[in-house]
Amino acid sequence: MSAAPALTHAEAGARAIARCDALGVAPFTDSDTGLYRAWLTPAHRAAQNQVAEWMREAGMAVRMDAASNLIGRYESDTPDAPALLIGSHLDSVRDAGRYDGPLGIMLGIECVAWLHAEGIRLPFAIEVIAFGDEEGSRFPASMFTSRAVAGTLAADAIDGVADAAGVSVAQALQAWELDPAQLAQAARRSDEVIGYLEAHIEQGPVLEAEGLALGVVTGIAAQQRFEVSVRGRAGHAGTSPMPLRFDALTAAAECVLAVEAVAREAASDLVATVGRLQVLPGATNVVPGRVTFSLDVRAGDNATRDAGAADILRRFEAIAAARGIQVEATQVQDLAASPCDVHLIELLAQAVQAQDIAPRRLVSGAGHDAMVMRALCPTAMLFIRCDGGISHNPAERACAADAGVAVAAMLDFIERLGATRGN
Amino acid sequence: MSAAPALTHAEAGARAIARCDALGVAPFTDSDTGLYRAWLTPAHRAAQNQVAEWMREAGMAVRMDAASNLIGRYESDTPDAPALLIGSHLDSVRDAGRYDGPLGIMLGIECVAWLHAEGIRLPFAIEVIAFGDEEGSRFPASMFTSRAVAGTLAADAIDGVADAAGVSVAQALQAWELDPAQLAQAARRSDEVIGYLEAHIEQGPVLEAEGLALGVVTGIAAQQRFEVSVRGRAGHAGTSPMPLRFDALTAAAECVLAVEAVAREAASDLVATVGRLQVLPGATNVVPGRVTFSLDVRAGDNATRDAGAADILRRFEAIAAARGIQVEATQVQDLAASPCDVHLIELLAQAVQAQDIAPRRLVSGAGHDAMVMRALCPTAMLFIRCDGGISHNPAERACAADAGVAVAAMLDFIERLGATRGN
Repeated sequence: MSAAPALTHAEAGARAIARCDALGVAPFTDSDTGLYRAWLTPAHRAAQNQVAEWMREAGMAVRMDAASNLIGRYESDTPDAPALLIGSHLDSVRDAGRYDGPLGIMLGIECVAWLHAEGIRLPFAIEVIAFGDEEGSRFPASMFTSRAVAGTLAADAIDGVADAAGVSVAQALQAWELDPAQLAQAARRSDEVIGYLEAHIEQGPVLEAEGLALGVVTGIAAQQRFEVSVRGRAGHAGTSPMPLRFDALTAAAECVLAVEAVAREAASDLVATVGRLQVLPGATNVVPGRVTFSLDVRAGDNATRDAGAADILRRFEAIAAARGIQVEATQVQDLAASPCDVHLIELLAQAVQAQDIAPRRLVSGAGHDAMVMRALCPTAMLFIRCDGGISHNPAERACAADAGVAVAAMLDFIERLGATRGN
Repeated sequence: MSAAPALTHAEAGARAIARCDALGVAPFTDSDTGLYRAWLTPAHRAAQNQVAEWMREAGMAVRMDAASNLIGRYESDTPDAPALLIGSHLDSVRDAGRYDGPLGIMLGIECVAWLHAEGIRLPFAIEVIAFGDEEGSRFPASMFTSRAVAGTLAADAIDGVADAAGVSVAQALQAWELDPAQLAQAARRSDEVIGYLEAHIEQGPVLEAEGLALGVVTGIAAQQRFEVSVRGRAGHAGTSPMPLRFDALTAAAECVLAVEAVAREAASDLVATVGRLQVLPGATNVVPGRVTFSLDVRAGDNATRDAGAADILRRFEAIAAARGIQVEATQVQDLAASPCDVHLIELLAQAVQAQDIAPRRLVSGAGHDAMVMRALCPTAMLFIRCDGGISHNPAERACAADAGVAVAAMLDFIERLGATRGN
């Protein structure tokens, strides 16, 4: 198949943005009121079909792996060469923006499309990979699909994990005609992969504040998640005198404010968030008997995060004791800080510098599939400036010009990496 | 149809309790995990069918009115005589107890069953009425069906009112083959009703603390309900620095604690409750952008309630201003204190005294259909002791012996009322 003429990098950046926008509406969303594309849903399937078409147009052979990841491969000039993986995720949070995830996939496709149009083959293959569940917005844990690729998904990792509707991960995989018992087949051997590059919007305010289109990520913050259960005693809202109440929601409200207070008082890069909270029975005229909520704690290094989480859990205990109420926190995720590869950071910094952009190095406060992929291969991450640092929000914006510069920097990085591999 | 032999009042009380227990399980609940019987649901329909059978066995003619209420009529010895209504509600909160509502209906049926078995007719008819939505647990307002009977349901009252699944009251009525436009047909003329008697568990700790099986209600507390909306800005939980957040949930948590503080500090009979709270978008890794919650404020008199609600709303404004977040409270219900009829209170007190129980008079902190029925006719309420004052909870308990004494007191009340009507 003969390639289409190459787009300029600016045109490629504009197309990458336009494609993210196209994926922001039906049939690529599971919600009528905004963008919500969850793992193994009809919207996810529709998005995969569309992205597969774009991958093929860019000169790639396309397949789906055993963990539902969509993979497009652009062959090397050398048979059976290992691959540079370029990826990000197709899934989204609820009421999401359009660029968190898809932009990294679209930029990878643009890099391949340019190489293909120019007839350039490299000493390694390039595989563009679209992961399925980075956000963890459907099931109460995340990054199953990149963990499957990295070979770090425990055999029992999906056991008993179900979404809010009671559908288990295993059932969701089966509905896609994937075998839950074969998830591990998605694992790659380290000798067939030379590295993982992920481009992503910053989702923070640093690059915008410093007037930079791109940034070089040095690593991903340490992260812990907890499920917290508060048990009081339900009662009638009209006849339960205030002094005799054991209100699970007022206790939980104290916990929510303690989470905020600990992170504010730390005055470090510690952030702590209660993003999800359910009240039971949840009726206007009933004193709540039970509340469950999520707790997410992150910091640039493990020690700061651990100290913050421990402080929060101590305050929960004090609140429970003072109110005669039960508060239990169960850790559901523990991701250590994940530094990027020193050599790849250096190549990426050179590639950014080559675009006349000072190579600002920064930590990612957000988790990314790259933190998981580090178990398989060296990783690198390129941040792209976004408006106001806003993400996980329909107001999320990245501009076409910045995306064009990102394509240029990524191609420069690929060229430099090729040079080091003896091209 | 000849009547079965009369049960003793103790046996009738035991049967009333047993029938409430029987209504606590499938098919009389809409939930797999506990008792939840909401207005116009399959469980409500099943319960109506069962109660209608019990009404017919007790000698009543049974019909459903235009507002879905089930009504059994036991005729007077005088043609076209007005009726004493004895009623309560069949619907429940989520994860409910078995006696809040149904017990009052069952006791009414036992009174009629006894009169029927003894061959006694009165100078008035007795109608036992099973209302449909006292709790407001399905739609965000309550007592539609008793308001329809009392003739106080505004023509547009149900317009735009829908449940969490988006089903409107009008659609739910149509699914029962009831015409939403004909709701007002359920209204009774005041000349066909001589009074309304409701027996109900106390749902509070007073009678138990004083060792009394029964209590005489002097009136029902004033009540206001609000829907509160908190709007902040959603953002990424990992990359939104604490000082730059506009977290709707931490703001709402402050509001929840302010509600509790106002009611505690009042040190009066003021109670204030946030029973329902939703977080949007509601994902572990997203700083909440929006929270909605219910607010319920009650006190024995209007002035105490109004002062409490005003204090709470002032504190909400201060919290919103301090955090740069929007907090809006919309009043959705305003029920003035509803005193019972002085004459009926006196008759009921005599009837309780006749059972050798000191006639303790007390205010009801809970709302009841009786507060609505006061617009139609004189009202009276009899409270029955319950364990630990617990209600709106599966642990709700009332004992058969107390129910038996309640049947005796209600029959004594009916006899005294008959005497005043020139029997």
